[in-house]
Amino acid sequence: MPESFKLSIIFVTSNINKAKEIENVLSTYDISIVVSQIKKREIQSEDIGEIARESALYAYQTLKKPLFVEDAGLFVKILNGFPGPYSSFVYKTIGVDGVLKLMFGQSNREAEFISQIAYINEEGSLKLCRGSCEGTIAEEARGCGGFGFDPIFIPKGCSKTFAEMSVVEKNMFSHRAKAARLLASMLLEEYK
Amino acid sequence: MPESFKLSIIFVTSNINKAKEIENVLSTYDISIVVSQIKKREIQSEDIGEIARESALYAYQTLKKPLFVEDAGLFVKILNGFPGPYSSFVYKTIGVDGVLKLMFGQSNREAEFISQIAYINEEGSLKLCRGSCEGTIAEEARGCGGFGFDPIFIPKGCSKTFAEMSVVEKNMFSHRAKAARLLASMLLEEYK
Repeated sequence: MPESFKLSIIFVTSNINKAKEIENVLSTYDISIVVSQIKKREIQSEDIGEIARESALYAYQTLKKPLFVEDAGLFVKILNGFPGPYSSFVYKTIGVDGVLKLMFGQSNREAEFISQIAYINEEGSLKLCRGSCEGTIAEEARGCGGFGFDPIFIPKGCSKTFAEMSVVEKNMFSHRAKAARLLASMLLEEYK
Repeated sequence: MPESFKLSIIFVTSNINKAKEIENVLSTYDISIVVSQIKKREIQSEDIGEIARESALYAYQTLKKPLFVEDAGLFVKILNGFPGPYSSFVYKTIGVDGVLKLMFGQSNREAEFISQIAYINEEGSLKLCRGSCEGTIAEEARGCGGFGFDPIFIPKGCSKTFAEMSVVEKNMFSHRAKAARLLASMLLEEYK
């Protein structure tokens, strides 16, 4: 960890892409992360915030140190919020092509990415940071950056998909970067 | 509860259809069920057995009495096991029509329903009973019996979908009935 970083916090995740995106945001606040890959336990819920909260509490039982976890999902309006909290499983099974097949012929392509960061501090008290990004589902997959459903998500006001952006560019729009900036403000307030 | 029933056991579920199907099987062994609708906590996992086990342990913490829970899923081969453990959420969002759309033009229509019953006895020890039913995904939805994806599942060797069968007929083939018969044998052995 470079000496210039004043603050360092544990991020429990096995997703290296998430770590890169959040690290990029937090580094601008002089906050660094230490990635822990301990096994997470995630509950089934339609509420991303509830999943993140329970997951953080479970990880805290093991690590007993300040930490945060992040849970996210893509909610497609015409599909009643599918794939939502199960975006990762849906990506692994039917993938981008499956979602495009479900959206074939749909004129309403509105969607929202939601991210919830659950942070537990020294005293064991928990706080949630929520970020969201509205957009549309592309007609076809484009780009090879990012991960998951990034190749078919176009943030509002953009023409590129998330997968056609660099990490820095994606972080100007993304749900995860918004949640990470809230986390940064909270951490700076707590450790000022 | 009729006097003729010797054994009675708590089934934690909010799904009345599941209760009816399992009740029909267990009654032939003179075992009755008492439905408890306490809030379940289900974890995210690709293993139905793990979900059922954790869910039963959680319910046992509250009820502290012998009980069972059941978890089930539809695993479509060409969709890499989708919707699997998240069948209930997928049914609520994209529904039967969504799965038919994903299967449009697919010649391989093999699928499997899997059920896992997790039973905890007086001493708090847990056992799993697994049942499965192989079949195919129908070209279109048929029938109005059953629940969930029953209108598009045709068990191997049948021409009818699960939704075109009565409870008794469905129980001759179903994953859930097979798991329930294993549970019955286990209970009769335990309380003989």
